[in-house]
Amino acid sequence: MRIEYNAIGLIHSPFKTIEGTPIQPSRAKNARGTVELFAEYAAGLRDLDGFSHVILIYHLHKSRPYRLTVTPFLDKQPRGLFATRAPNRPNPIGLSVVKLLKIDGNVLSVEGVDMLDQTPLLDIKPYVGEFDRRDNIRLGWLETAPKNIDVADERFK
Amino acid sequence: MRIEYNAIGLIHSPFKTIEGTPIQPSRAKNARGTVELFAEYAAGLRDLDGFSHVILIYHLHKSRPYRLTVTPFLDKQPRGLFATRAPNRPNPIGLSVVKLLKIDGNVLSVEGVDMLDQTPLLDIKPYVGEFDRRDNIRLGWLETAPKNIDVADERFK
Repeated sequence: MRIEYNAIGLIHSPFKTIEGTPIQPSRAKNARGTVELFAEYAAGLRDLDGFSHVILIYHLHKSRPYRLTVTPFLDKQPRGLFATRAPNRPNPIGLSVVKLLKIDGNVLSVEGVDMLDQTPLLDIKPYVGEFDRRDNIRLGWLETAPKNIDVADERFK
Repeated sequence: MRIEYNAIGLIHSPFKTIEGTPIQPSRAKNARGTVELFAEYAAGLRDLDGFSHVILIYHLHKSRPYRLTVTPFLDKQPRGLFATRAPNRPNPIGLSVVKLLKIDGNVLSVEGVDMLDQTPLLDIKPYVGEFDRRDNIRLGWLETAPKNIDVADERFK
């Protein structure tokens, strides 16, 4: 079953290459960027400024063919792809929770960007604690992952 | 920019119609379902059983044309579409954090399903507190939303 989407905007970030790009928003706390929603969709941003965080869903446009077993940035041994957040996936969809700083017209200023510059935007959703936050979680192999690796290397280039 | 994806599986749930389907996993706590990953991708599930929760990304296959202003399930007044989780969106991508009960081969048993039966699956990601959980959040119009509405009505049919 083939599914077709269209970019609804572009994410502008300081990161031009995969190497050096933060692996997650939580490890990119000072990285600011902008989300440019194409003007035709701007009316849909009404009321969003009341939310402190938004979920960005985007197309990982620089992803490469996937493998079902990968060695993730935060580990030294191979793991099943769906047990990782590696960017090369059958459908290369990225998901980041970022802090919303302000909205000017069709442009969102956000903090915690971990995506490449010019990444095509697919959707914006408000981050809602009741819907999106879980406690008492188990983390599998990530329980013992290093806390001091913040940026990507070349492995998924 | 057109983006093409392919379903990598199907989500099986007890919900056959939009009316009566839970609006979010947090309001569908007892609803169990299965995620059938197509067999060719099964090897990618290795190590996922260590995680208590997974993020399902899926195509809202019964969504209808979107409007940029909608009255959400939990409100009585119109809001900007991107300030809501309404299913009719420019790219109808759904996102749910569900509890992972077990994995048998290519089938995940999960709790907290809020999607229609036969929903096409786009991606599975492990839910990771550091990456996906935010505290000290503001909720905009949802701050005062009712807590006692659990299932969808016909408005987005």
